[in-house]
Amino acid sequence: MSLFASVADFDRLIAALPQVDGVTQNKAAARQSQLTKPPGSLGKLEDIAIWMAGWQRSERPDIEHGQCIVFAGNHGVVAQGVSPFPADVTAQMVQNFEAGGAAINQLCRVAGLDLRVSAIQLDTPTRDFTTGPAMTDDEVLAAMNAGAESIADDCDYLIVGEMGIGNSTAAAALCLGRFGADAKGWVGPGTGLDEDGVAHKATVIDQALAKQQPIDDHPLALLAAFGGHELAAIAGAVLAARLRSIPVMLDGFIATAAAASLTANGRLDALDHTMISHMSAEPGHLRLAVALRKVPVIDLKMRLGEGSGAAVASLLVRAACATHNGMATFAEAGVSEG
Amino acid sequence: MSLFASVADFDRLIAALPQVDGVTQNKAAARQSQLTKPPGSLGKLEDIAIWMAGWQRSERPDIEHGQCIVFAGNHGVVAQGVSPFPADVTAQMVQNFEAGGAAINQLCRVAGLDLRVSAIQLDTPTRDFTTGPAMTDDEVLAAMNAGAESIADDCDYLIVGEMGIGNSTAAAALCLGRFGADAKGWVGPGTGLDEDGVAHKATVIDQALAKQQPIDDHPLALLAAFGGHELAAIAGAVLAARLRSIPVMLDGFIATAAAASLTANGRLDALDHTMISHMSAEPGHLRLAVALRKVPVIDLKMRLGEGSGAAVASLLVRAACATHNGMATFAEAGVSEG
Repeated sequence: MSLFASVADFDRLIAALPQVDGVTQNKAAARQSQLTKPPGSLGKLEDIAIWMAGWQRSERPDIEHGQCIVFAGNHGVVAQGVSPFPADVTAQMVQNFEAGGAAINQLCRVAGLDLRVSAIQLDTPTRDFTTGPAMTDDEVLAAMNAGAESIADDCDYLIVGEMGIGNSTAAAALCLGRFGADAKGWVGPGTGLDEDGVAHKATVIDQALAKQQPIDDHPLALLAAFGGHELAAIAGAVLAARLRSIPVMLDGFIATAAAASLTANGRLDALDHTMISHMSAEPGHLRLAVALRKVPVIDLKMRLGEGSGAAVASLLVRAACATHNGMATFAEAGVSEG
Repeated sequence: MSLFASVADFDRLIAALPQVDGVTQNKAAARQSQLTKPPGSLGKLEDIAIWMAGWQRSERPDIEHGQCIVFAGNHGVVAQGVSPFPADVTAQMVQNFEAGGAAINQLCRVAGLDLRVSAIQLDTPTRDFTTGPAMTDDEVLAAMNAGAESIADDCDYLIVGEMGIGNSTAAAALCLGRFGADAKGWVGPGTGLDEDGVAHKATVIDQALAKQQPIDDHPLALLAAFGGHELAAIAGAVLAARLRSIPVMLDGFIATAAAASLTANGRLDALDHTMISHMSAEPGHLRLAVALRKVPVIDLKMRLGEGSGAAVASLLVRAACATHNGMATFAEAGVSEG
């Protein structure tokens, strides 16, 4: 049976989210203070280890079965000329993922993550959202279920990526629908638009908002309004991970925007089990991170998607867990404390 | 025979440093532009891959025999009460490194780096530099040679770390001697001084400068003035790596300060083969990075030393090389270009 069988099921699940294990988190913090280093000197690595402990509910957290899922989908809004790449590139890149030739393949190998690619109805793009909702509620739920079902049974750490020509436009629209402000503040060059192209993207989003207002402040309504299949799948996977208490490292602007749809109705806590892996070069990502009250772990000026930034940050999660679990305490090592 | 047998030898070597291989670097940049991603979308990972290519003189750079050397030394200036930890901790931590219990052990394992620990005359601390030079020229040269000789014959990538109670004071003095300004701008809490302790550290350095002025703007003179054995060893290793065209990832404030001594007499180019791995939480590191015209790769609020920040950044070097070498080109993958 599907996790999100109906809108009512979805509402019931998001109303009663499992919370972090504060007791285990405190034990992990206490362990950090006993390790052979000045207190706090591993900086964010300490924060990451403690976050992992709280969500894995283990004093010695680790990535044993880490998974990267890349969701792919196509977008009717490409008819409005919002991407410099043709829509065929979505399917071509899925083939590239499957053949092992993309960035995310190499990064998952380095980070020791199992890569799964989930292409969702590439031959059936979402509808052009300048003319009405991109998806029906049922289509959104189906994509969310596809996302939830892509998580392996033994998964203990998750990153989710995306591929979809046109989806930085859908992501910007989701952000505008969720957080307001103006379209210009949420759009950016994506895969490589020039200044005029970015301005056009904002106009397209403004048109869509005008056509579709009012949009309910609800995750499913936002995702139905703007799509796409892969963004709803990300939201479904992130929520399913929460229900299983799996820590999630979010990728860049598009994946974070998809996850942010879960925070509709002021539910910022729906993303408590997530970190934002990196600050994307896509300008809307900074605004989005601020809106979500999260500081990205690293800033490498990346803007590729595919889960690439999250895969790189996963290397730091490995470093964090390795130091947390492997270091000797002052007592064990016979080192004098300061 | 030792690499740095005399001051004249040192001067001869630093006067004719090998330069980056620009032809190979350009080939690597051209390859990046053909990989299946929007141009530039891997951000700093692309810069790192191209930097590695130029210094390894290989269009397909990689870490095959990466090495981390942690140098340890003791400092007479601890008599001035500049550290909250007793000097015995230097030797205790060396034992911890050898037993595998320190942060750097775990981080080298995750990053696939061979760890070597080089403790230099722990029973013979450098002289207290508030009373005169910490080391003689011969002592500096001996430590530099120890540094150079610690690099394995097959090393193709190097990080250098340090352990030495009191050495953040020596590092701040080196920075003041090299770049001027005021002692207050270069000192920080180190392993955990409070505000009064930091102010005292600045006073100690001011006293030393007053006692020892003028100090020649020469690497050996700076290192002789303030020490220590492990800092001179780092300078020797970094310079020896340059002579062998081995790329070096610098660690935090102390290791970067040691390497910065090589830039005396305006020779900023002496560190062209290095990157600064991370922005240390030690406040002088930002000022030092600016003085060296380098932007640290990551900022994780770390302040541990031991090479820990450089080891973490080495994970990104692995990610950079993996994507550079392993990704398919647009032509190979049959993906349309934008």
